[in-house]
Amino acid sequence: MTVKQLSIPDLVKGCTDLGVPAVALWREPVAEHGLHTAARLVREAGLTVTSLCRGGFFTAADPAERARALDDNRAAIDEAATLGTDTLVLVSGGLPPGSRDLFAARERIADALAELWPYAAQRGVRLAIEPLHPMYAADRCVVSTLAQALDLAERFPSEWVGVVVDTYHLWWDDTIETHITRAGAGGRIHSFQLADWTTPLPAGVLTGRGQLGDGVVDFRWFRDRVEATGFTGPIEIEIFNDDMWSRDGQEMLAQTVARFREHAL
Amino acid sequence: MTVKQLSIPDLVKGCTDLGVPAVALWREPVAEHGLHTAARLVREAGLTVTSLCRGGFFTAADPAERARALDDNRAAIDEAATLGTDTLVLVSGGLPPGSRDLFAARERIADALAELWPYAAQRGVRLAIEPLHPMYAADRCVVSTLAQALDLAERFPSEWVGVVVDTYHLWWDDTIETHITRAGAGGRIHSFQLADWTTPLPAGVLTGRGQLGDGVVDFRWFRDRVEATGFTGPIEIEIFNDDMWSRDGQEMLAQTVARFREHAL
Repeated sequence: MTVKQLSIPDLVKGCTDLGVPAVALWREPVAEHGLHTAARLVREAGLTVTSLCRGGFFTAADPAERARALDDNRAAIDEAATLGTDTLVLVSGGLPPGSRDLFAARERIADALAELWPYAAQRGVRLAIEPLHPMYAADRCVVSTLAQALDLAERFPSEWVGVVVDTYHLWWDDTIETHITRAGAGGRIHSFQLADWTTPLPAGVLTGRGQLGDGVVDFRWFRDRVEATGFTGPIEIEIFNDDMWSRDGQEMLAQTVARFREHAL
Repeated sequence: MTVKQLSIPDLVKGCTDLGVPAVALWREPVAEHGLHTAARLVREAGLTVTSLCRGGFFTAADPAERARALDDNRAAIDEAATLGTDTLVLVSGGLPPGSRDLFAARERIADALAELWPYAAQRGVRLAIEPLHPMYAADRCVVSTLAQALDLAERFPSEWVGVVVDTYHLWWDDTIETHITRAGAGGRIHSFQLADWTTPLPAGVLTGRGQLGDGVVDFRWFRDRVEATGFTGPIEIEIFNDDMWSRDGQEMLAQTVARFREHAL
């Protein structure tokens, strides 16, 4: 998604040229290219698919909408398995229209996880709950902190339900070190993602994530804490940035690799 | 600030006409009208000044800038005393330019509070630390949760250093009930403020607070929790909203009173 202007073949070529060994994919561009074609392309290039983004949106109260969401998540789990990744990232969903009941929304997430994890486990796919920044709590994700994501995940087996640690969403939290340690000790860090926090935020606050080094996040601090728990998994970079998307995708991919070396190695 | 288009005399008249018994003021419009004139006007109308907003901005690392901030806060405390309010609201400050060190910024806030509270106590003014929504952590306030504000406040006497509970900043927090109870038990709720959360957020995310009832906040839930701790203080409504500011101020004041009755009584 960091270089969403690139087609899947161009993304694969760019990663190969730059020595990037692994890539996280989103469902929509994969579907557009064709799931099986994309899977074969990535596999033949020797790239690991670190995760598929995204399942989730579990908070609907309406039974028909809820059933559709569960079906869609089963499809996402199947797609993850086809792509050969072991991790599906979950954005849990915001408040249903007209609702002010955060507690009920959060319980519906737990109910959905209870239904989905055995299906995912059968296919070798882990469900990774992503806490999103609290500014998205109303309309995208009522899970806003790592502590809260862990409270949910810990109701289920750690092999199959874990969390995403994404610096963009969590950098501000004064308790984050404690909960990174807790997540790592429980084997729950299923994905580790980097993006920087820059201001001012754009309208809608969706596409203002910063290139590494342009903002206030101390990536080495985060990486040290995550790796101190024994985490040896991949590090993903996921930046939504209108300016980066408007530029040459291969240049932006190269810039991202350079920034990772400068700020996070 | 909810009706910042009104002059201080028009604000006083509007409150009197509507039977609003108390008002929170901001320093800039007070200074513009003249501190002593404003104080007399409000007093003679029989209005209570619930709080003065705002002191704070304690995070500068530069010694000269830090000294200026402390001087400015002493001036704000004096202004609060002149206006006859017992509460100065503090917005603690973001990261200094170029810094990524949240921990150091937070400790500088504690240092500033240690210097200021005896000065405030001598003048009968309480310092109320306002946790701001995490989307302001970089540029306005590194204190992002009620728990964190309490961790700071509890280093000092509860009569003189407390917190602000503002629904706009705190509504998303799944641990908020625990910390409202903690704040109330410690006598630390020095101010209780209402605004609604609406989406999409505008660019810069400063002026998109919602009129009560337009968003997702459950005000009665918050009010019940705050008052269950024994809190009997005033309830302030503080909305920053470009659309409301562009309309007739007296109409917006009347609308706000009506919305309070509808959604928070």
